[in-house]
Amino acid sequence: MSEDDLIARHFAPLAGEGGLGLLDDAALIASIPGHDLVITCDALVAGVHFFANDPADSIASKALRVNLSDLAAKGATPRGFVLALALPQQNDLWLASFALGLKRDIEAFAFPLLGGDTVKTPGPLMVSVTAFGTVPQGRMVPRTGARAGDALYVTGTIGDAALGLLERQGQISAGQGGAHLVSRYLMPVPRNALAPALLEHAHAAMDISDGLIGDLTKMMRVSGVTAEVMLADVPLSAGARSVVVMDEALFTRAMTGGDDYEILASIPPQKAQAFEAAAVALDVVVTRIGEVRAGTEAPTFLLTGGRALNVVGGSYSHF
Amino acid sequence: MSEDDLIARHFAPLAGEGGLGLLDDAALIASIPGHDLVITCDALVAGVHFFANDPADSIASKALRVNLSDLAAKGATPRGFVLALALPQQNDLWLASFALGLKRDIEAFAFPLLGGDTVKTPGPLMVSVTAFGTVPQGRMVPRTGARAGDALYVTGTIGDAALGLLERQGQISAGQGGAHLVSRYLMPVPRNALAPALLEHAHAAMDISDGLIGDLTKMMRVSGVTAEVMLADVPLSAGARSVVVMDEALFTRAMTGGDDYEILASIPPQKAQAFEAAAVALDVVVTRIGEVRAGTEAPTFLLTGGRALNVVGGSYSHF
Repeated sequence: MSEDDLIARHFAPLAGEGGLGLLDDAALIASIPGHDLVITCDALVAGVHFFANDPADSIASKALRVNLSDLAAKGATPRGFVLALALPQQNDLWLASFALGLKRDIEAFAFPLLGGDTVKTPGPLMVSVTAFGTVPQGRMVPRTGARAGDALYVTGTIGDAALGLLERQGQISAGQGGAHLVSRYLMPVPRNALAPALLEHAHAAMDISDGLIGDLTKMMRVSGVTAEVMLADVPLSAGARSVVVMDEALFTRAMTGGDDYEILASIPPQKAQAFEAAAVALDVVVTRIGEVRAGTEAPTFLLTGGRALNVVGGSYSHF
Repeated sequence: MSEDDLIARHFAPLAGEGGLGLLDDAALIASIPGHDLVITCDALVAGVHFFANDPADSIASKALRVNLSDLAAKGATPRGFVLALALPQQNDLWLASFALGLKRDIEAFAFPLLGGDTVKTPGPLMVSVTAFGTVPQGRMVPRTGARAGDALYVTGTIGDAALGLLERQGQISAGQGGAHLVSRYLMPVPRNALAPALLEHAHAAMDISDGLIGDLTKMMRVSGVTAEVMLADVPLSAGARSVVVMDEALFTRAMTGGDDYEILASIPPQKAQAFEAAAVALDVVVTRIGEVRAGTEAPTFLLTGGRALNVVGGSYSHF
């Protein structure tokens, strides 16, 4: 099958209006007066960010969702994406499954395919997505805006994906909670529903992709502040709790592991109540975990009893 | 070096205003009232689209220029790009050279870096660029708009890169012209200067990346027309002419090989003269090579004497 045939069969049916049927060299996004375009780009490589034998539809979902998660953190409404796909071989069944995974999330998140490039590679499968969203002009929620006194919130639960990877590799067993952990590793749940509340209330936000501790540290550093985080307040799923409760090393892994794709938000104190109410209305669970402080030292992560967690490294790095 | 350090050292200095110092998860493009955003994406893989030991700065240039070429063909003014880079290993000298190649073209084409993602890969180097440009609203030059009676034009010279690859591999020797051929393989010369003339005059345009014959055939097919092309009129460089003049197989290779990154444009006959004058004013050489005809059969490519070139395949496919 030629590249054109492959695109016509698997991808053209997924193209949104701006994708021009994937017949052109380019895609179009009409300007929306009074809005800025937010652009984010995340690439996933087999053997680094996922396993080559993961289900093709879940690889497609993960590639879209890690980008949707970035848009959510910026308060942006998703508008579409382009896809660069490097394929080690042609496999029509695999491609059909991959396209089905795309289609489900294209529909679930109103996130049309606009274009892309398909190339062959002598190396591993690589999926690179560039995603587009819009925010009202000048209103993108930055990573750099946290201020002393802000309350720090996270969505969902933290550490599931990092523990899910261990569960999948047979290194831990979370019993009944194990399937949930593995599913969160395979397929993030981006918090796009929360975007309007972030736009309205947040000083700063980012998605947590490289571990809570590392990413929170990064947000404080680029904002020129520090923070105090109460680790007992960090929300854990039942599966995560069952394995970390007696094992500080695993707890540390949960706090520093990657692939959460939850949102960390810095909310001014006078808006905290309104933010919590908005999150409830949007059906997204948010939990207050700490406070931004003046200072440029690294944030403190306090365990129950007041002892600070000793983090070596701090952030999981795919790099 | 962590990914953050690598970005801070090599890429943050290249970031344009919308790149937010590469400190955020996302980039911004402010909407330009009355304009559409044109998006294009081309990925290059070592061992497929370039040689792994090509100079790093020329790999960077090629990755940007193949995308700039798409923007030119759409009549778009370049606005910036995001870069997904999969690195097989860290090599600071290589990265410095790669960044220098980016910097030169960022400056030459007023084409700022807006963001991206850097990941490691167990496979070959891969560079995926998503590029942005703007056109006045509703005015993007499509690939699908060629109409019977249009004159077909190409920019520059055709076949140099395909022959440059053979020269580089020692399969041909073009003598004094050989260096020019190899340089056109390593580093395309995108025709962004021509964009205003295409916007003003072209029914359709595309950049020629997979060979003149294949790409012209594709443009006619998606436009629902056919064409007659006089191959004697196709412009050749002195180096190309010296090797193809007595060798129809090499001539065919020049007409079907990839990596020209010249522009093919379909111009209504009443605008042909104005288009040629505009091209002269913009200092871009354009040459009329044929005419669009009604019909849905494959285009005819006529040799001197009226015999049609027998093309098997027609298009070089990297895929």
